[in-house]
Amino acid sequence: MASTAGIVVIGNEVLSGKVEEENAKFLIRELYAMGIDLMRVAFIRDDVDTIAADVRDMASRFTHVFTTGGVGSTHDDMTLTAIAQAFDVPIERNPTLHQMLVEHFGERMNEAVERMALLPRGAELCGLEELRYPIVKMNNVYVFPGVPMFLRAKFGFLRARLAETPFVLEQIFLSVSEDRFAEALTAIAGRFDDVDFGSYPRFDTDEFKTKVTVEGRDASRVAEGRDAFLAAIDPTWVVRRA
Amino acid sequence: MASTAGIVVIGNEVLSGKVEEENAKFLIRELYAMGIDLMRVAFIRDDVDTIAADVRDMASRFTHVFTTGGVGSTHDDMTLTAIAQAFDVPIERNPTLHQMLVEHFGERMNEAVERMALLPRGAELCGLEELRYPIVKMNNVYVFPGVPMFLRAKFGFLRARLAETPFVLEQIFLSVSEDRFAEALTAIAGRFDDVDFGSYPRFDTDEFKTKVTVEGRDASRVAEGRDAFLAAIDPTWVVRRA
Repeated sequence: MASTAGIVVIGNEVLSGKVEEENAKFLIRELYAMGIDLMRVAFIRDDVDTIAADVRDMASRFTHVFTTGGVGSTHDDMTLTAIAQAFDVPIERNPTLHQMLVEHFGERMNEAVERMALLPRGAELCGLEELRYPIVKMNNVYVFPGVPMFLRAKFGFLRARLAETPFVLEQIFLSVSEDRFAEALTAIAGRFDDVDFGSYPRFDTDEFKTKVTVEGRDASRVAEGRDAFLAAIDPTWVVRRA
Repeated sequence: MASTAGIVVIGNEVLSGKVEEENAKFLIRELYAMGIDLMRVAFIRDDVDTIAADVRDMASRFTHVFTTGGVGSTHDDMTLTAIAQAFDVPIERNPTLHQMLVEHFGERMNEAVERMALLPRGAELCGLEELRYPIVKMNNVYVFPGVPMFLRAKFGFLRARLAETPFVLEQIFLSVSEDRFAEALTAIAGRFDDVDFGSYPRFDTDEFKTKVTVEGRDASRVAEGRDAFLAAIDPTWVVRRA
């Protein structure tokens, strides 16, 4: 059984378009390359109850959850408080993280920075040796910052550790619109539970009208699914395959 | 009281990265320009129960819900079935839409295309005169296709009809990191319930270290919030304002 994942993007600035979302976009590609089934992405507001509800829901249903945003020192940074609430644990000072912050901020240490050392009870610090600032992990939830370049740098640490069997993808480009083969495709998709079929019309190219994708983890099953579809359609419709 | 909105992006192809998400990105900017508070965006898989649950939840909490994707003629197009389930109504042939499809497809009309004429009972068709293909609306849920150029063309029809008082935004660019003013900002944010304060560190420019935003619908309250923040910080920190 493949691992699943959910992404929680936290921040009013993303929902108002003040900041263009880049982290989910990056994680979507990464998780696909790692062979992990991404089940859901949510962009939500800076609200403790909302964040807690989404984290609790996804953590109970998916193998991994990744949050981005809401981990600085200002009033709108409430991700860790919300994660503590999601798991019904208190938030408390983490001595290791506190020491790191003291060393970094020195005399500029204040109440706002002190807040950054508060973690849900039971949280782990991943990559303490390898990263400049560790990844906070609470149960199956990995907490990432909202700043894209920090998220990317930190995610590299997890990539090899969480990767699974990659997906196999076959693409068939057709000269006809999807209504011509929709019935056949529906029937075939029903016969292959472990293969994912997609049909994507395109209107901005003359080369083809629809792309059909056949995808799964078992290459031989993907090939069977592809061949079943090719056998069901008029072969002259196929523009190319990839 | 301002209107709120939620966006439901439907399709496995978005979660696997096979198709880069463009519709939520577009709608985020549009809704902000229209003065509508976007509360949540969810990217979810082609699964009837999942779509129904998200639509039901958002429709009960927000003024408007916009769905994108899952409205073609193939097996993975299940948005309308799910919306019917969300509102506990049957799905049935819409005579107006059926007639349009018959005229368009002519002899190529088949069972798969017939499915496209099935709508939740009670659904309305918006823009019948103005658009080539109407927007399906079920209660407060607007159903859009996944193909970005179609979504954009259709959304233009709703823009003027749903627009509200626009937001006012003040931006203050600072030469210091946010830990220097986090406590002051938190205190001020607590005093202005109707003004939204944000603090965004930047690491890829030398011009400033943090951008603080002050935002709301009432320009005089936004100005008061901005002035309260400016009065609380060292004036030499301000690089520029916008």
